[in-house]
This record gives sequence, structure tokens and C-alpha cells, in this order.
Amino acid sequence: MSNTYPSAPSAYSFPLLIKQLLNRAKTVSLDQEIVYADKQRFTYNDLFNRINRLANVLDSLNLASGDVIAVMDWDSHRYLESYFAIPMSQYILQTVNIRLSPEKVLYTINHAKPKVLLLNSEFAPLVKDYQFENSSIEHIIWLDDNGVTSEGIFGSNQSRVTGEYEALLEAANDNFNFPDFDENTIATTFYTSGTTGDPKGVFFSHRQLVLHTLAEAASLGMLPNKQGVSYGDVYMPMTPMFHVHAWGFPFTATMTGLKQVYPGRYAPDSLLNLIINEKVSITHCVPTILQMLLKEAQDRNANFNGLKMIIGGSRLTEGLAKAALTQGIEVYTGYGMSETAPLISLTDFSLNEPELSEEEDIARRCMTGKPVLMVDAQVWDEHNHPVGTGKDNTGELVLRAPWLTQSYLKNEDAGAELWEHGYMHTQDIAYMRRDGTIKITDRLKDVIKSGGEWISSLEIETILSLHPAVADVAVIGIPDKQWGERPLALIVLKPNCQNTSSDDIKALAEQAASKGMIPKYGVPSQFKFVEELPKTSVGKHDKKVMREIYANQT
Amino acid sequence: MSNTYPSAPSAYSFPLLIKQLLNRAKTVSLDQEIVYADKQRFTYNDLFNRINRLANVLDSLNLASGDVIAVMDWDSHRYLESYFAIPMSQYILQTVNIRLSPEKVLYTINHAKPKVLLLNSEFAPLVKDYQFENSSIEHIIWLDDNGVTSEGIFGSNQSRVTGEYEALLEAANDNFNFPDFDENTIATTFYTSGTTGDPKGVFFSHRQLVLHTLAEAASLGMLPNKQGVSYGDVYMPMTPMFHVHAWGFPFTATMTGLKQVYPGRYAPDSLLNLIINEKVSITHCVPTILQMLLKEAQDRNANFNGLKMIIGGSRLTEGLAKAALTQGIEVYTGYGMSETAPLISLTDFSLNEPELSEEEDIARRCMTGKPVLMVDAQVWDEHNHPVGTGKDNTGELVLRAPWLTQSYLKNEDAGAELWEHGYMHTQDIAYMRRDGTIKITDRLKDVIKSGGEWISSLEIETILSLHPAVADVAVIGIPDKQWGERPLALIVLKPNCQNTSSDDIKALAEQAASKGMIPKYGVPSQFKFVEELPKTSVGKHDKKVMREIYANQT
Repeated sequence: MSNTYPSAPSAYSFPLLIKQLLNRAKTVSLDQEIVYADKQRFTYNDLFNRINRLANVLDSLNLASGDVIAVMDWDSHRYLESYFAIPMSQYILQTVNIRLSPEKVLYTINHAKPKVLLLNSEFAPLVKDYQFENSSIEHIIWLDDNGVTSEGIFGSNQSRVTGEYEALLEAANDNFNFPDFDENTIATTFYTSGTTGDPKGVFFSHRQLVLHTLAEAASLGMLPNKQGVSYGDVYMPMTPMFHVHAWGFPFTATMTGLKQVYPGRYAPDSLLNLIINEKVSITHCVPTILQMLLKEAQDRNANFNGLKMIIGGSRLTEGLAKAALTQGIEVYTGYGMSETAPLISLTDFSLNEPELSEEEDIARRCMTGKPVLMVDAQVWDEHNHPVGTGKDNTGELVLRAPWLTQSYLKNEDAGAELWEHGYMHTQDIAYMRRDGTIKITDRLKDVIKSGGEWISSLEIETILSLHPAVADVAVIGIPDKQWGERPLALIVLKPNCQNTSSDDIKALAEQAASKGMIPKYGVPSQFKFVEELPKTSVGKHDKKVMREIYANQT
Repeated sequence: MSNTYPSAPSAYSFPLLIKQLLNRAKTVSLDQEIVYADKQRFTYNDLFNRINRLANVLDSLNLASGDVIAVMDWDSHRYLESYFAIPMSQYILQTVNIRLSPEKVLYTINHAKPKVLLLNSEFAPLVKDYQFENSSIEHIIWLDDNGVTSEGIFGSNQSRVTGEYEALLEAANDNFNFPDFDENTIATTFYTSGTTGDPKGVFFSHRQLVLHTLAEAASLGMLPNKQGVSYGDVYMPMTPMFHVHAWGFPFTATMTGLKQVYPGRYAPDSLLNLIINEKVSITHCVPTILQMLLKEAQDRNANFNGLKMIIGGSRLTEGLAKAALTQGIEVYTGYGMSETAPLISLTDFSLNEPELSEEEDIARRCMTGKPVLMVDAQVWDEHNHPVGTGKDNTGELVLRAPWLTQSYLKNEDAGAELWEHGYMHTQDIAYMRRDGTIKITDRLKDVIKSGGEWISSLEIETILSLHPAVADVAVIGIPDKQWGERPLALIVLKPNCQNTSSDDIKALAEQAASKGMIPKYGVPSQFKFVEELPKTSVGKHDKKVMREIYANQT
């Protein structure tokens, strides 16, 4: 404050720390429920005690402020507790994306250098060898729902294993006094796959996450009850907690004191059981999960009774939206990315809105939505100037918001590029309507999204190009009903190798997947031999043209 | 950010400035409406241009950052524009409470020392003399709806008059580039009456107001549509804009892009006309205004059709709540004070809540409500320790929130007292239920609230004690159906003056009011002669006992 307006000596300046998100719930929601699949059920009062216990367990490990603690788990109460206890203790939570190829999973761990790993026994084989090697990990906390012990996986090498999560919590004190510290302290980090091979780390401060939580609560709260969030809703994630804070919902739901359901590993039957039995009313997922759920419900002749569902990660298609609405799901679109914490835009609904035809209603649910509160979203031309509104004014969508990653971890060049000219570049091509609705039409970056996961086309191309018969290759994403997009490999064979079969080339990709270099879903679904590949004026592959040609042809 | 997590050079750190509240509306709400009584109607696009024009007008006055600009106006589009243009230009908005006694109005201006005064012609007589005297005011911007000119009031002394508001805006450029600056810059200041005679100044930074706005939007958004706020609602204030930012709603409504209606001077018929004609769906006021409205609607046989109304400033009584509900108003309680920006608690409603009886429903609407998001509300005993929950555990309600005044302006002692032991002291006595509901039962500070305005009992006592017949006097607030509370004077006459009439003593208070020393509503409604006044063990007046004895007796 300035000289004329000094603060009182004891005035509390209220740093925006994650612990402050609990203030209301600690007063109002003590008896509210947290459910973990069909395994556990406790109250917010228990949750607060368990967060304290976990903090005491971590405290006993003699870590330093700023140390990274990684979690590899399905969506669980343990993950929820980690979302709070780890950053509130001034450590950094790394949410490990266990869907990446094993090689990449280890890359992200090697890069972020966690001192502690909370490890679900189901993922232990993945890091089994790693834990013996030149690893930053000093402590492993064992998470298990299946009776698998660390001895069962690691054998006699238990030196780094601190103990089993529930046993450690049980033995810990349930009091902990979380200190105040600088709100710009980093709270979370995780990785996103870009066009280049190596995943890039993003990171978020306490202040950013508190502001994201408040703006998410306000933006979803402002939607009418039929689509938005209100006190009394029941929340369950179906976008994993290792994916951009599960859209920030675990923070938002805890702040507002909602009943929360964590489903463990996603399986259509158990997800549907939880939705029905626990009366889940608000969730979010990628289109692929929605499709699986719709099928499961059809098989069981079940209806979703107005379940609110935000689709993000891949485009919601009109056909899928219609099917979901028919089966009783209030489905609509949210847009964001790893770099944006993630919430940027939501489909707009309002009280007393003019009636829309079914077609219009479905169309707006499948658009990218309107920017949420506080977000400054602009569409820029190639000279970094904002363009006008309307279909004819496409450009790159660029952003300012209080919760955007301020760079990439240990990658200053990529960070500088991300923030060129003071706005964050999404690399998505879009236009904006006069009413603020954004429509993404294409993307600048050369990646494919399958089942909500990024695939780097460059990486697949590099592998396929190693085949002796391949003269030129381009991998593009083409629309796929089940996965959103699937990779299509366009291949120009060398003149003397015209008899090569696509299976022969596919085998190379499969080999790379089996070695953990690329994820299994990175193996192209289709291979097409062509005479030549479309090129831009400067001789680069013109993927925009390729996507136009092949989108509906295959 | 720390060394390991540096920001990119061009990364935007997003200071929490009031201008950022406009981001979404600038993209999404350009065609939304702003209405000023029956006088003016324009769009948000116009609003943004008018804010720019006002900023250019202010810019031409050669002020310095941090200079104070005072506004004396009824609720108008001009006030709304001032809420944004003044702080966004790095000046401090002083919202002058024109309901205080003339002496106190001038005191607050003398104390805050504004360089510019936006002055509605209706209040010009109040400051007529002041503008000639030893005043900080260098520029007066004339606001008028009635064809009254500054010449008409100030005569030839026009040296300080910059011009008429609309004419100045009309002549100004509609482009303005609001700069970034420190989010802890003070944005607003205004005055509250305390127990001592002089009003105390509170002040709020950009950061605090942005956080208040976000938390208010989230907290009201989380309420079901029937009570809370959603996109599509139409907002009109009925708590004046000079009173604690009109509950913060002008900021919240603008951020969310709601249609807004500003009613000018409050008169029951025009308020009701606007509610009906403009389809107002959410508002807030003191019980006195609600009573006037109910009567007006009864006389006209009108129904409020579910108008959502938050009552604050004085206690909502069960009888009034019932009457309002019967006439179609969704009435409930909000709690806050000048020191708290103001929102602290709201009545709780949720989807799928268990059905309540009418009596239970009315009772909860009249409680103080549950803390809103981010608020840390505690009840402390006299040793500054939190007490348990339940009726038997009363104590002082103390607060932490991101938007509490950090001191009193130029009054460090009072500021230190306000923040003793690191929590803000409300001086309200309360208990808290297990479910977080607060119930205020009494107050520590010796003030009376009549029609939403504070009356200092000490001040009235001082005046009455000047009467030669008065040996001892205490003024307490007693419940009043129309005004919430009204002052009752308890008087001990000197033994030799037992024949003095109450009219004789009342005349003294009326004289003080006519001189502008106390407001007209400060004159006690009732006078009661007593043998002696209840005292505490240390010989002080025991007002708690007096209130208990006389609350229902008179």
C-alpha cells in the first residue's frame, strides 16, 4: 500500500494460497461426503484431518521448500489429498501423465526431478528399473488397492520405500499448521507433448490456482442450474487428475463444499454405476469417454437424468452431442490446454434466452464457447494485430488470463516463443463472433489428439522415415468417431520400392511403441501411399491442405 | 517466481486491476443494455466508450496518480462510469455518503481531500459555501438531470467548474489506453460512522476489489437460480452506490455482462416501475426500502414475480420476510460492513435440499447466513480464542478475507484496534452453528442503525447531556418495524428538575439536527425518564441490559 494508506501492523494481507480455498468448507461443509469408487467414503472433516496427516508424513521426510513430489495414481481420494497437502506444505506437486509412452513418463520424472514419488502399485512396473538407477527419487510412498506390496514388485530393494499411504497416514498426527508464504510460490507442474519429441513442463503458482478456482466457480456458477454448478451438485472427474488438474475441478469442488466422487481407473461400467448410485450431477471428459458411457448406458437401458458434462480435450461433434442429449446428458464444450491451467472458454447459456432450434442448440454446444470471466481472448493476424469478428477473420487465438503458465520448465526458448508479444499463443486458428463465441477452425501446431492425448506427428514421421522404402512421409490427424482424431500416414515410396506393403511400414511404428518410444495409440491407424505430398510456397509440407483432402476421404 | 521457474521475458503476470474485470464483457456483452431511470439507455459498447471519454476528461485536469476524486450523485450511469474510469486512471474514487449530516459530509471531504468533485446539482447547496472556502477541490464536474446549472447555484463563482458531465464526455475522445500498475494501488475510499463522532475512512485496493468481485460472482453464482445470479439476470441497486460499492454489485454485474438498471434517487413508485418495466430480477436493499416497496406494490396490486433480493445493513425480520415472500420476492440475508467491501456471508440455499417448513425457511433467510467463498470467519471469546459451535458459544465475530480494509484512513490507532491479533474485529456478537450458519445476537459497538444508516449513540448522548436538567443519559437502539432500529433516549433528571418535559429535551436534539451536527434521523423517536441507568461492574452504562429491558417495552 502507498504511504497515505498504510496497513495496520496486524492487518492480514491475505496471500492467495491454496490453503485459503478451504476456508469456507472448513466452516460450512464438515459433514459433506468424499467417495472413492466402491472402496472408501468419508467426510470433509476427515479430509481435512487426512490432509494434515499427509503433511506430517511429508514433513518427516526432511525435504526442502520447493522440492518436487510426484504422484502416479488413478483418480482417488489420495490424489485429492495430494492436491492440497503437497502445495500447502510448500512443495511442488508433479502430476505424472501415466498415459504417455513409458519412455516419456520417465523423461518427465527425470526432468522435474521429484524427491518423493507417490506410486500406485499398478504403475510400479513402469518405474521398477528406474528406481534403482540414477534417480532423483529418495522416497516412495506406496499406493495400493489390490493387495500388491512393494516387496512384490521391488523385491528386496526397499531402501527408498517409506511405507504404504494409508498406514503412514494412520500413524501420523492429524494436526498441522500450514504456514503462510509468497503466493507466487510454484504449486504444481506437469508435462504436455508438443510438436518436438520431448514433453514440455508447465507450472502454476498458488496465486494462479486460487484465481483459476475462483474464476471457474464464478463462470460455472453463472451458468443456469441446468448446465452450471450450484451448491448441492455432486462432482466426479472423468478427465484424469494427472491432466491439467482435472480441469481444476477438485479445487473448485472442495472450495464450494460439493460432494465429490473419485472413480479410480476409468471403466465404463464402474463409472456408470457411480453416476447412478452416488447421484453424480456434474462431470467433464473427452469425447471418447462420453462415447463409451453412452454405449454402456444403452446396453443397460439407463438414462443420465440431466447429468451436466463439459467436453474438453477434443472437439465435441454434432452427432455425439445429439446422442448425449438424447440419452439425458446436458453436454457442452469447455476449451483449454495444459498451458492454461486449463479453463479458457465455455459454451454460453443464460436464463430467459431466446428459444433455439435443436440444430442451433447443438451447434452452439459444439463451438469453442465464450471466454470465461477475467480472460482476455483475442484473434491475431500474422502481424500480431487483432482482427475483427466474424467467420472471415480467422487468425491465431492468443490469451491473457491470471492463470497461464509463465514459461516452460527449463526451456526458456520455448517459453519465450509461447509468450511472444506479451500474449500467450495457443497455436489454434480461430475466429470470433460478434457475441464473443470462439470457433477453432484449425491448428498451427503439428499434433494429433487421440482419445484426449496428444500425438506428435513429427515423432511418428521420424520413425516411419527410417524405413528404407520411404522417400517422404507426413502424418496427419483425421476425424475419428471414437477417438476424435487418429493418425493417418501419407507415404511417398522410393521409385525402386513400389511394392512395399503398408504392414511392413506399420511394423516399424509398432516396434517403436513396444519399446516405449511412442505410445501405442501413436501407431497410425491407416497408411496411404501417394505420388507426392502437397507443399507450401516455401516447400514445407502443407498439412492444412492434406487435412482438407483426406479428412473425409478415408 | 523462483529461480527454477523463471517467467518468459514477455509473459504477462496479470496484475489484478479493475480494468481486467471488463475483459469478458468487452468480448461477449457489447450489445447488452445499461439503463438510467427513465432518462437514458445505452449499450456496454457505449459504456466502454464513455469510460474512455471520462478518463480523457480527467486526464485533461493534470492530476497526479493517487489523487482523490469524489462523487456526490444518486445511483446513475455516471456513477457506474466513475466506478471504472476513476480507479482505472490510477486515481482514488471517494464515494461521498450524502445521507450523513451536512457537517459530516463536509468532514469526509475535508478528510479525504479530493481534488475533483463530481457533483449532482441536487447536492450542490450542501457544498456551496465549502467550494469557496479552504477546500482541496480544484475541479467540479457538474452532474444534472433537472436543468439546474452551476451558475444557478454558484452564481458568478465558476472558477472551479470544469463543465457539465455529458458535455465534457461528448467533447472527449473515446479512446483511452489504461496502463498497468501495482495491483495494491488504492482504488476507492469512503467513510463509516463509528462510536466516536468522526466518521472513519476505509479504503480498498484494485486487488481487493477484483477478488471481492470474483468471490461475489462465485458465491452468488453457486446459489440456485431462484436465489442466486446467472447470466441473463437483470440487476438494479437499491442500496446506494455511495454505500460500500453498492454491495460490489456494479463491479460484479459489469464483469458478468448483466443488463443493469440505475434508478437515480430512490422513490417507491419509480423503483417499482423500473422493476416491472425493465424486468429487474436481482437487487439488494435495507429493510426500510423493502417495506416501502411492498406497500407501493400492494397499493398498485402488483406482484414481484420472484425478484431476488438480498437484505443487508439491518436485520431482516421474520415478519417482513414473510410479507416479502407472499408478494413474490425471494428475499434473504447478506451480511457485511463498510470495513469488509462488504460481502461476508449469505443465506445458504442449495439444489436438492431437504424440504423445510415455511417457518424454518423464513428463519434461515433471517439468520446472518454462511460465510462466502474464501472468507475465514471465526467467533472468538474475550481471550481471543475461537469458541465452539452452537448457541451457547457466543463471542465476537472476527474475519479474514482478501478484501478487508487494511486500516482506517489517517487513523492508525483505530486501524490497529480493528486488526488486533491479526483478525478484523466486527464488534458484532455472534454464534455459529455446526453447519456454518452465523447468527448475530448483539453488538459490542455502541451504535444504532436506522434505515440502513448508522447513528452514533455517544454523539446523541453528548448533545442531550448539554440540557441543564439532565443528570445522566443513555441512547439505545430499539427494534422498529419500519426503520430496523430507532434511538430511544433514557434520561435521569436532576432532582431539582423533575418537571422537565421530554419535548424540551427533544428540542435540543432537533436544534443540533437543523444545524447539520447530527442527521435528522438521529433525533430520538422516544424519550423515557428513569430513576437510574443499569451499570456494569466497573460502573459503565450497561447497554446490553438496557436493550434487554426496553427492547419490547416501548
